[in-house]
Amino acid sequence: MTDAPEFGELVPPDRTLMGPGPSDVHPRVLRSMATPLVGYLDDYCVEVMDDIQDGLRYLFQTDNEHTLAVSGTGSAAMETAFSNLVEPGETVLVPDNGYFGARMGEIAERAGGEVVTVSAPWGEPLDPADVEDAFAEHSPTVFGFVHGETSTGVRQTGVSELTEIAHENDALVIADTVASLGGVEFRTDEWDVDVVYSGSQKCLSAPPGASPITFNDRAMEKVHAREEPVRSWYLDLEGVWEYWGDERNYHHTGPISTLYALRESLRLVSEASLEGTWERHRRVAGALKAGVEEMGVGLKAADEHWLPTLNPVRVPEGVDDGRVIDRLLDDHGIEIVGGLGALDGEIFRVGCMGHSARPANATQFIAAFGSVLADEGADVDLEAGAGATASALRTE
Amino acid sequence: MTDAPEFGELVPPDRTLMGPGPSDVHPRVLRSMATPLVGYLDDYCVEVMDDIQDGLRYLFQTDNEHTLAVSGTGSAAMETAFSNLVEPGETVLVPDNGYFGARMGEIAERAGGEVVTVSAPWGEPLDPADVEDAFAEHSPTVFGFVHGETSTGVRQTGVSELTEIAHENDALVIADTVASLGGVEFRTDEWDVDVVYSGSQKCLSAPPGASPITFNDRAMEKVHAREEPVRSWYLDLEGVWEYWGDERNYHHTGPISTLYALRESLRLVSEASLEGTWERHRRVAGALKAGVEEMGVGLKAADEHWLPTLNPVRVPEGVDDGRVIDRLLDDHGIEIVGGLGALDGEIFRVGCMGHSARPANATQFIAAFGSVLADEGADVDLEAGAGATASALRTE
Repeated sequence: MTDAPEFGELVPPDRTLMGPGPSDVHPRVLRSMATPLVGYLDDYCVEVMDDIQDGLRYLFQTDNEHTLAVSGTGSAAMETAFSNLVEPGETVLVPDNGYFGARMGEIAERAGGEVVTVSAPWGEPLDPADVEDAFAEHSPTVFGFVHGETSTGVRQTGVSELTEIAHENDALVIADTVASLGGVEFRTDEWDVDVVYSGSQKCLSAPPGASPITFNDRAMEKVHAREEPVRSWYLDLEGVWEYWGDERNYHHTGPISTLYALRESLRLVSEASLEGTWERHRRVAGALKAGVEEMGVGLKAADEHWLPTLNPVRVPEGVDDGRVIDRLLDDHGIEIVGGLGALDGEIFRVGCMGHSARPANATQFIAAFGSVLADEGADVDLEAGAGATASALRTE
Repeated sequence: MTDAPEFGELVPPDRTLMGPGPSDVHPRVLRSMATPLVGYLDDYCVEVMDDIQDGLRYLFQTDNEHTLAVSGTGSAAMETAFSNLVEPGETVLVPDNGYFGARMGEIAERAGGEVVTVSAPWGEPLDPADVEDAFAEHSPTVFGFVHGETSTGVRQTGVSELTEIAHENDALVIADTVASLGGVEFRTDEWDVDVVYSGSQKCLSAPPGASPITFNDRAMEKVHAREEPVRSWYLDLEGVWEYWGDERNYHHTGPISTLYALRESLRLVSEASLEGTWERHRRVAGALKAGVEEMGVGLKAADEHWLPTLNPVRVPEGVDDGRVIDRLLDDHGIEIVGGLGALDGEIFRVGCMGHSARPANATQFIAAFGSVLADEGADVDLEAGAGATASALRTE
């Protein structure tokens, strides 16, 4: 018999999570995770699911009946969206201006879709005119876009314009809001987006493992009319809806503790109000942005496309981004990450989401970041940066 | 704007979970869930994953390198097994003697497989002779079986015989141990099973959401040689292994808090030893079984196929099983469930898994169950039942 391995108590180092997620989890959400379980068909569990659905409808700003949490992390929600909406042979349009647009394409291909792309440089949003051209050229039936692109820190503006183009062409629209939902304005019904998904570990201050998603009636009509079954049994919406819908039949066991956590995080959003939550993200990230700019570093994102939840901070001339990241973690316990793909070495990605979007994190980050950059020989004005952040956070 | 919903504090009723899972979660595991997070590429997270892999190898009794936790609940692990091993057009053999054999078939079909079945009555294990006949008739390339069938409470014995038949026919073998791993003996390497998966919320005393799985080299050879990509991106083992293997590259965000929980639950198994954990399940479930039998009710499973972790207790003559289940929950806070499919109305399913497999639960259950049955007019001897359970639990 193999020997029993020995490992000690779980004692993680103390971290301030300012990367692209997970964010710091709210203490009330952490506590909810330690709550004893009930069975997944217990009336109380059903109440928890009802609360989550109400909370998610508010968060998504939708009246969609088909609103639920996928039993997996954000990419499972992405796969739920594409694998349910795409049938083999369909043409799927995705963006190529970031990492997660490419992932949409990979998933759509595995669902049997033919993938075509609409281009924009990494670090810029899609231009509606280009989307219109792509529709004219390829006639896609499904169009996916990323509202807050985690890899570049860019916010896609003009969502209503994009959905209008798609609907005029009889296509359905899927929006990725993993890094934006709850952190910046998103209005599912008003902007007429057919499927929207997100994650729990970014703007919602919860751990990863239960991922918000919503389908409108137009999307559900297509799901119900499928000719081939969805290729993933686990993520098949009609199956999953047996459990989340009125029938409450067993499909698969849900991640109960993570549902407790999601419920508590939605309760926090409701208590603060959604506008209040957006405003908190804008205020704290704005203070962080002001600090970075006054320090003399700045963001690689135009102000009109700024995504407060994920800030693409420029790597100053002559500085080794990997060393800065390591020193922030080792000396200050702060996690940030580097750029991906086309932006590797060019930006730091600094998250400001959920419970990480609070004044203490912004001031801690600016002081530590400025100090490490100065130590690493960058030409930065630490005092001006810290001052600007503190001043922007000043309460009246 | 939609109004913010209002919901109160999370206050679940106090439950004793003696159904088919989730089981009671161990207090140390609950506490681990409330631990603040680190990033998914933090060195500490990598250590946690290393510990989990060591703990899982011990639990599975395997040296397989490809041993990890799937980022979903048990059915996601089932889909990981079948969707990675089955290519379109392959013949897949599954059992029809329980609910989860049928699910294997559904998942294999969505992977493009042609599904054939080997039969046994619900409530009995597969007969190796029938498996041999099925191989002769259908020449399947993949054979799945259920070691502990949650829907019937039957343990599949003679696993080595089954794997030998399959390997002589150049087929790969997948074992479902969702309701058995950690609760009863299972030896992956010695019994030569190619892929084995389980869940965290049954014998491991953890919440659902991170599911153990292991692939041997023979299975990995087939995965690496696939002609078509796995149809699920989220569950594609080669992708997932980018993260769990030596490279530790981002594939998708793992369910960090649930990984903390799984680590703590594996730590508990190591501390008690695997044999000690099996023995605890046998002793406590044995006391429960003795009580049920002395009470005059008994199990619908032959002693040689008894699955201590899930006991199919007969519904006594003239008793309404639904009323008994409801009264146990409402009056005693104890969750058990009824039979499924062919055994609906014929059995209660009484779990004795993980932290629910402890003396206090067995004595509480027997007293409450006997009392409700007597109240409902069944001809049972409550005192003899409770006495037998207490006596079987008596320590020397």
